[in-house]
Amino acid sequence: MTDRISRFPVPELTDLADDVRERILGVQEKAGFIPNVFLMLAHRPAEFRAFFDYHDALMEKNEGLTKAEREMIVVATSGAGNCLYCVVAHGAVLRIRAKNARVADQLATNYRKAEITERQRAMLDFAMKLSTNGGAVEDADMAVLREHGFDDEAIWDIGAITAFFAMSNRLVHLTGTPPNEPFYLMGRLPKGS
Amino acid sequence: MTDRISRFPVPELTDLADDVRERILGVQEKAGFIPNVFLMLAHRPAEFRAFFDYHDALMEKNEGLTKAEREMIVVATSGAGNCLYCVVAHGAVLRIRAKNARVADQLATNYRKAEITERQRAMLDFAMKLSTNGGAVEDADMAVLREHGFDDEAIWDIGAITAFFAMSNRLVHLTGTPPNEPFYLMGRLPKGS
Amino acid sequence: MTDRISRFPVPELTDLADDVRERILGVQEKAGFIPNVFLMLAHRPAEFRAFFDYHDALMEKNEGLTKAEREMIVVATSGAGNCLYCVVAHGAVLRIRAKNARVADQLATNYRKAEITERQRAMLDFAMKLSTNGGAVEDADMAVLREHGFDDEAIWDIGAITAFFAMSNRLVHLTGTPPNEPFYLMGRLPKGS
Amino acid sequence: MTDRISRFPVPELTDLADDVRERILGVQEKAGFIPNVFLMLAHRPAEFRAFFDYHDALMEKNEGLTKAEREMIVVATSGAGNCLYCVVAHGAVLRIRAKNARVADQLATNYRKAEITERQRAMLDFAMKLSTNGGAVEDADMAVLREHGFDDEAIWDIGAITAFFAMSNRLVHLTGTPPNEPFYLMGRLPKGS
Amino acid sequence: MTDRISRFPVPELTDLADDVRERILGVQEKAGFIPNVFLMLAHRPAEFRAFFDYHDALMEKNEGLTKAEREMIVVATSGAGNCLYCVVAHGAVLRIRAKNARVADQLATNYRKAEITERQRAMLDFAMKLSTNGGAVEDADMAVLREHGFDDEAIWDIGAITAFFAMSNRLVHLTGTPPNEPFYLMGRLPKGS
Amino acid sequence: MTDRISRFPVPELTDLADDVRERILGVQEKAGFIPNVFLMLAHRPAEFRAFFDYHDALMEKNEGLTKAEREMIVVATSGAGNCLYCVVAHGAVLRIRAKNARVADQLATNYRKAEITERQRAMLDFAMKLSTNGGAVEDADMAVLREHGFDDEAIWDIGAITAFFAMSNRLVHLTGTPPNEPFYLMGRLPKGS
Repeated sequence: MTDRISRFPVPELTDLADDVRERILGVQEKAGFIPNVFLMLAHRPAEFRAFFDYHDALMEKNEGLTKAEREMIVVATSGAGNCLYCVVAHGAVLRIRAKNARVADQLATNYRKAEITERQRAMLDFAMKLSTNGGAVEDADMAVLREHGFDDEAIWDIGAITAFFAMSNRLVHLTGTPPNEPFYLMGRLPKGS
Repeated sequence: MTDRISRFPVPELTDLADDVRERILGVQEKAGFIPNVFLMLAHRPAEFRAFFDYHDALMEKNEGLTKAEREMIVVATSGAGNCLYCVVAHGAVLRIRAKNARVADQLATNYRKAEITERQRAMLDFAMKLSTNGGAVEDADMAVLREHGFDDEAIWDIGAITAFFAMSNRLVHLTGTPPNEPFYLMGRLPKGS
Repeated sequence: MTDRISRFPVPELTDLADDVRERILGVQEKAGFIPNVFLMLAHRPAEFRAFFDYHDALMEKNEGLTKAEREMIVVATSGAGNCLYCVVAHGAVLRIRAKNARVADQLATNYRKAEITERQRAMLDFAMKLSTNGGAVEDADMAVLREHGFDDEAIWDIGAITAFFAMSNRLVHLTGTPPNEPFYLMGRLPKGS
Repeated sequence: MTDRISRFPVPELTDLADDVRERILGVQEKAGFIPNVFLMLAHRPAEFRAFFDYHDALMEKNEGLTKAEREMIVVATSGAGNCLYCVVAHGAVLRIRAKNARVADQLATNYRKAEITERQRAMLDFAMKLSTNGGAVEDADMAVLREHGFDDEAIWDIGAITAFFAMSNRLVHLTGTPPNEPFYLMGRLPKGS
Repeated sequence: MTDRISRFPVPELTDLADDVRERILGVQEKAGFIPNVFLMLAHRPAEFRAFFDYHDALMEKNEGLTKAEREMIVVATSGAGNCLYCVVAHGAVLRIRAKNARVADQLATNYRKAEITERQRAMLDFAMKLSTNGGAVEDADMAVLREHGFDDEAIWDIGAITAFFAMSNRLVHLTGTPPNEPFYLMGRLPKGS
Repeated sequence: MTDRISRFPVPELTDLADDVRERILGVQEKAGFIPNVFLMLAHRPAEFRAFFDYHDALMEKNEGLTKAEREMIVVATSGAGNCLYCVVAHGAVLRIRAKNARVADQLATNYRKAEITERQRAMLDFAMKLSTNGGAVEDADMAVLREHGFDDEAIWDIGAITAFFAMSNRLVHLTGTPPNEPFYLMGRLPKGS
C-alpha cells in the first residue's frame, strides 16, 4: 500500500560491495530501472549473491525448457502462492519471452484456462503439485512428465524452478516488497507501438 | 485455450429476441466489442435478462460504495475463485473506474497488498470471508463494517455483489468462456496516450 | 438464534410494489406461509425481481432434469455450503417432489450415501465440484456427464442451478435469514397422514 | 443406497453371546426397533461391549452437561464429519431430549445458526475445534470454557464425547451403515400428535 | 511444555479400583514405567476400562494384519493428526515390533516415503483417507484393499484401528498428555547394544 | 523405500569440480558420512554452490537466533511440509545443538506441544504462517515478533530460513532423497554413552 521497498533496511547503492552494485547496475541498464527485489536482498549481500546465482543457473537457459516456459512455472506457482511481486514482475518477463500479452494473466489466475500446449499443461500440473502439495509427489508423477517428452534435465528444471520460487514468494511475503510500476505494463503492447 | 466463446451453443445476434439483442448492441456500442459473457448467456434469454437485471441493480450505483469499490469486490473475490473472465474483464473496468492501472492486478493476486484505504480493506475482508467461508459470517462481522462507516445499504451491496459474482464465477467455470482480448490492456495506459 | 427474518430492514407487504406483493401472496397461497427469503429480498425490489425470475427459469422445468433432481442439486451444494435456510426449505421441496422423506437429509449430510441413481450421482459429483472447486472444471467433466446421458441443456441446468445457489447461499449468510418453521416437517409424513 | 446394514457380515441375534443379545433387545424394547449400529458392531462382540460401555459412560449422565447438550456435540461434530448415521440417529435423540424439532437440523448444517445459548455455543466451538483441528487445542481454549461456567468434569465430557464420535463417525464410514428409517421422523412431531 | 501428565486431575495409584490399578501395574512391569495415557485416563475408571478393552481387542492380534502393521496405522494417522503422544509412544512400539529403527519416523512424517510393502501402502492409503476424509470412503476403496489380499476381517481391523486412534488422538489433544521420556529412544538401538 | 539417493543421476566424487568435492569431503569429515542431499545436488554444481552458500549464510550464525533456534524453524516447517529428509537430518542437528533428545520429534509432530520458550513459540508461529499461508503475513505479524524481543536482523533470519527450507523441502520432494541412516539416531543418546 506504500512505496516502501522492504520492511527491512534498504542500502544505498554507494554502500554496496562492488560485485553486488555491479549486478544491480547491470539489471538496471537492461530493464531501465532497478527491480525492487534487488534492493531488498542487497541488505544481505551473501544471500543476495547466492539468490541470484541460483536464479540465473535455473532461469537463463534454453535447453529442455524455453525461457518462456521457465517463466510460466514462476507465474503459475506464484499466483497460487499469492505473491504479487512475482506475479507482476515475472508476468512481465513472461509476456516478453512468450510474445503473448495474455498468458501471464491467465496463468496467474487459473493455469487450466491458459493458452498453452498440452506439454506445458503437464509441466504446470507437476509444478503446481510440487508447489502446493509436494509431499505427495511420487515416481508416477515423473512418469507422466516423461510421457510428454521431458527428460531428466528438464524435469529437474521444472522442479527446481518451482522450489526456488517457493522460497522467493516467501521472501517477498517477509519483506512486503511491491513490484516496480513499469512491470505492470511491460510486454502488453505490440512491439513498436 | 481456444477462441471458443462457450462450451454451449452461442446464438447469432439475428436470432435473438429484440430486447436481448438491443442490450448486447448497447454494450457493444459502449465497449467497442461484445463481451463474451453476453453471447454466452444469450443462449438462455430468460436467464440472460435476470442476470443482467441483477447485475445492473448492484453495479450501476454510486451510493454507499463507489462504482470502483464495487468492481474491487468483483476482482478480489474472482481472483480467489480462479475466474479468469471475471478477473480480466472486471479488472479492466476497475482500472478505468479507479483510474489506477495497478490495483486490479493487486486485488486479483493478494488483496492484502493492494493500494486501498483501510475502509476498503475492511470491505474486502468481509467480501472474502463471505465468498470463501460464508457459513462463518456472524453479527460481529457486520459490526466491524459499521465501525468503518458502512451503513445497512452499503453492507447489503458488499454482500450481494459478492454473492452475485460467486454465481457469475461458476457460470464462467461451467461454460469455459474466455475474456475478450481487449480487456487485458484496457485501463492500463494513461488517458490520451 | 432469533425470529429475526433478516439483519436488514424487512418491508411491510403494504409498502411493496404491486408485482412484488403479488408474487409474495402467490407463494403464500401455495405454501400456506411466506418463505422468509421473499420478505428478506423484498427490501430490494429490483434484486427481488431478478432473483425470482432467475430462480423460476432454472427450477420450474421438467425437461432434462426432473424438478426433484433440480432440488437435489440445491440441497447437496447448500449442505456443503452450510446454508441452513437452503437446506431446510429446499429439503422440504425435495422431499415432496421426490416423494422420499429421507433423501434430503442424506444429500445435505453426505451426498455419497444418498438413495439416488448412478446418473444422479454423476450429476451431483459435477455440481459439488463446480460449487466447491469450480476453477478445476474442465471439458473432461462435461464428457462424464454426457456418458450418463445428460445433453447440453441438462448440463447447463446442472451448472446454472449450482451457480445460482452459490449466490443464494451467500445472500442468506449475509442476511442471517432462518428457515420458516413449517419447512422442517414438510414432506416427512406420508400423504394423507 | 441400499438396505444393507453393513459392508461386513451381520450376525443373527440367535448367534450372539447372551450379554450382547440382551443389550440389543433392551434397546429394541425402548426404541421399537434395533438401531443398525448395534447389529453392525455385533460382528465384533469384544468391540461391541467396549464401544457401548464407553458410549454409556459418556452419554447417560446429566451432571455438568444435560443429556441434550451431549447430543448437541454429537450432531454438530458428525455434521462436520459427514456421518449420515450419526446425524440422523443422534439428531432424533437430540430432538427428543431438547424437546426441539429444529435444533438437530440446525446443528448438523451450521452450528453457528442454531437456537442455542451462548454457553452451548462455547461448548460447540470447543468441540468443533477438537474434532476438526484438534492439534491446535491449547490451555487458552480450556480457559474460555471455564469462563462460561464449565468445570473440569464438564470439559472432559465435552472433549471425550467429541473424541468418541470422531471414532464412531469413522466406524460408520468404514461399514457404510445407514440410519434406520424411523430416526428420520422421530422427535419432529409434537408429543401426542 | 511441562511435566504435567494431564490438564485434568490424575489419581494416585492407591486410590484406584483394583482392576484399574492392576492393569496399570501390569503395563508398568512390562514397560518399566507407566505410560502417561494410563494415568490420564484413570481419572475416569469406566472410560479407562472401555478404552483399554477396545484397544486390546484391536491391537493384540496377529491375524490378517501383523502387530507391526497395526502400529503402522496408528503412527501414520497420528502423524497426520499431529498427536505427539501417539506418534512417540506408538512409534516406539512400532520400531520394536517391526524391528526397524526408521519406519516410525518415516510414517509419522510422510507415509508415502516409508520402507513398506505395496500391500502396506494400500493399507495406509485407506487408513489415511478414512482418518482425514472419511465421508468419501466408498465400496471402491474396499475393492482396492481386497485386490491387495486383505479379507473382511483385515479390512475391519484397518478401519477400526484408524477410528479408535481418531478418538485417541483427540483425547490426548484434550488432556495435553505428553509422551513419557523413554518412548523417544525405545527401539532405536540394535538389540543388545 | 529404496536406497536410491535421488531420482536423478548422482555423480561420482571423482567426477566433481574441486570446490564441490572439497565441500563434500569437509562435511564427510565432520559428520562421518556424506549427507545424501550433498550428493543429490552435486548433479548440478552451480545450484549446489548457490544452495550451500545460501544455507551457510543463514544457518551458521549465532546472533539474534541461536543455531539451535535456526534448526527449530527447519524442523517445524519441514514437519508441516512432510519432508522426511529435512525432518530427520535437521532433527539430528537440532538435538545436538539444543542438547535435547526430544524437541525435534515434538516440533516435527506438533510445534505447539514442544518444550520451548514463549519467545521460541512466537518465532515458530511466524515461521509456520509464512511457510503455509505466507500471503497473509502483514505488518502486525512483525510487531508480535518485536514484542518478543526480535530485532530486524533476527526477524529476517526467521523468515529467510523458513523461505529457504520451503525450497529445500520441495527439492527433496522432487528428487525423493532419503535421509542417511545415522541421522535417525544422532543426538538421541546422552553424550559419552
